[in-house]
Amino acid sequence: MTTPFSFTLAATDGGARLGRVETPHGGVETPAFMPVGTQGSVKAMLHRDVEAAGAEIVLGNTYHLFLRPGDELIQRRGGLHRFIGWERPMLTDSGGFQIFSLAERRVIREEGAEFQSHLDGSTHVLTPERAVDIQSRLGADIAMVLDECLAYPATRDAAAASMQRSARWAQRCRDRFMATHNAALTGVVPSTPGQAQFGIVQGGVFQDLRDESVAALTGIGFEGYAIGGLSVGEPSEVMYAIAGETARQLPVDQPRYLMGAGTPADLVECVARGIDMFDCVMPTRNARNGQLFTSQGRINIRNARYAEDDRPLDPACGCGTCARHSRAYLRHLYMAGEMSAATLNTVHNLSYYLDTMRRIRDAIALRTFDTFRQGFLRSASRLALDS
Amino acid sequence: MTTPFSFTLAATDGGARLGRVETPHGGVETPAFMPVGTQGSVKAMLHRDVEAAGAEIVLGNTYHLFLRPGDELIQRRGGLHRFIGWERPMLTDSGGFQIFSLAERRVIREEGAEFQSHLDGSTHVLTPERAVDIQSRLGADIAMVLDECLAYPATRDAAAASMQRSARWAQRCRDRFMATHNAALTGVVPSTPGQAQFGIVQGGVFQDLRDESVAALTGIGFEGYAIGGLSVGEPSEVMYAIAGETARQLPVDQPRYLMGAGTPADLVECVARGIDMFDCVMPTRNARNGQLFTSQGRINIRNARYAEDDRPLDPACGCGTCARHSRAYLRHLYMAGEMSAATLNTVHNLSYYLDTMRRIRDAIALRTFDTFRQGFLRSASRLALDS
Repeated sequence: MTTPFSFTLAATDGGARLGRVETPHGGVETPAFMPVGTQGSVKAMLHRDVEAAGAEIVLGNTYHLFLRPGDELIQRRGGLHRFIGWERPMLTDSGGFQIFSLAERRVIREEGAEFQSHLDGSTHVLTPERAVDIQSRLGADIAMVLDECLAYPATRDAAAASMQRSARWAQRCRDRFMATHNAALTGVVPSTPGQAQFGIVQGGVFQDLRDESVAALTGIGFEGYAIGGLSVGEPSEVMYAIAGETARQLPVDQPRYLMGAGTPADLVECVARGIDMFDCVMPTRNARNGQLFTSQGRINIRNARYAEDDRPLDPACGCGTCARHSRAYLRHLYMAGEMSAATLNTVHNLSYYLDTMRRIRDAIALRTFDTFRQGFLRSASRLALDS
Repeated sequence: MTTPFSFTLAATDGGARLGRVETPHGGVETPAFMPVGTQGSVKAMLHRDVEAAGAEIVLGNTYHLFLRPGDELIQRRGGLHRFIGWERPMLTDSGGFQIFSLAERRVIREEGAEFQSHLDGSTHVLTPERAVDIQSRLGADIAMVLDECLAYPATRDAAAASMQRSARWAQRCRDRFMATHNAALTGVVPSTPGQAQFGIVQGGVFQDLRDESVAALTGIGFEGYAIGGLSVGEPSEVMYAIAGETARQLPVDQPRYLMGAGTPADLVECVARGIDMFDCVMPTRNARNGQLFTSQGRINIRNARYAEDDRPLDPACGCGTCARHSRAYLRHLYMAGEMSAATLNTVHNLSYYLDTMRRIRDAIALRTFDTFRQGFLRSASRLALDS
């Protein structure tokens, strides 16, 4: 298979890696944070502002796009990039995590997952093959295998069985992907030639299961590897340890993506352990709830102490929100229920996350990452200013 | 009183007038449309995009800002411009229309209006003097007198009594305004030195009452004159006739503002009758409901016919929404309940309104306004494309 997808490792500093992912829609400097654009739009944002904040890649959710407006409609529109008007790289998840989250509205079998739509209750089956086909039609630059997502906490037996099923599903996903992308044997015409596919390491908090999963997935062979099933409620130290030890075993010349993490401190800590890519709803969801990240600590903009605070959210921030507006105005908009509160807050939080990634990359390039990391963690960044 | 407020009439073409209003925060080319920024934010928009659409002035609602966050807080923040971060001209209404709309939650007496807050039920009294003081603290470039707003339809007797009370209130508003702005006799320090004050002509659909109102208000003397109590349910032809005949009697060298109108056709028709300024929630509210204005007619973006329509909303439009997105994507965002649907739709509708005003001004400058008007009204602009 020829693919424009590639990963170049440019530098390392301790465990931290500086690199670049190339995709059919352009490059992504790593370590990278991917804002979540669930339904083809990063919530409360225009694409232009996502770009201005520095995002080089966004994530779309296959579960949501499959149900509405549908992968076939999106393919008829020319694929996801063209449909939503975003010409930079994109990644789609497999839909597995959302289906897992449906709880009693889904049944997982060896063949695949049967679930009822949260929109209208209609029943659907998502097999590994179908997850590949849907993502081929969507045409993101990076597709993910369908994995079984495990609840936390889980017994070792449950984690082992789930990891093994995920490995079998990964093989089925890869087979389908190769059939589609090499020779159009499946009747599915990919919207984006050169799409890459990442495997997902599972195994819960049991490192030996993680090791087994890595061996199975690298045996199959993917363009990149994700670490799934973390950032689901386990202590940070456990997440860091599992992510770090798992990353250490993954191929050095391929990108490593930690799914669903995390806080700004999580990003710094996991970059230190060799992670290249992240996604999380935290900056966008927290923004809509008035929870803002600043270089001096977290701010809950609803707090009455900001009612007459003429300062910007973060004097160290260059985003459009901080350049133009005061905490007092942002609090007013939030309390008044104005949509622009969500937009202005999201512009800021995404800028904070993406600025943090830029500073991480700069520090790795200068081989000062450990100094940066110590300073970042010592700073008040993780603390609430107003609690 | 010295004031930086002025109006220059640059050209006329039939009844249509081309002019320029100067205010302490800059100039406004007229005929002008003022987007409504009720609570200090044009709904679903960032200021930057309101500016980019071509708005030179926005309107704030005194009733809402008085209740939350309060005129005194806004004054402590340096006035409304500084509080919200909008440095261009602004106009505030008096709060009368919102209080009138509270129906059973308000009592109107000669002294003023007593009402209960829609937020918490607390009781407040808005007198003409207080409406002036609140607007002095807010510090918009143009303040409006408190008037009594009449329901439509109304008897001639009711319209006469209401118009006469509004005239008495206008005198009290002017007295208070002069006391505050000339000599700080009132203890209120205006946030914006050089604020202007407009009177409001009332009289319902009875032209002789309108004439009487014009005589009373011009006898008092204001920096400009608004026509209130129209666009409240009367037939378009009645609105056009009253607005036109009333405008004809107003001073030629001062701006004329038709409050609360209207559709794009209303703007063109009332410019033809000598109106210089407009405000209306229609472009912004309709956008949030999926109702979009285009050069080819109105579009209800919820309509299933747009599900696979790859065209922009309006091929003749240069706004950011039309430059980047298809009807199919806008329909998807609307159906999916994404906030960005409201933002993208509002960017378009405001651009359509403000482009229409630009075309109107260009036509007057070229003395081709009547040709423009006929073409505009003949076009499908007023018709729904999809009903």
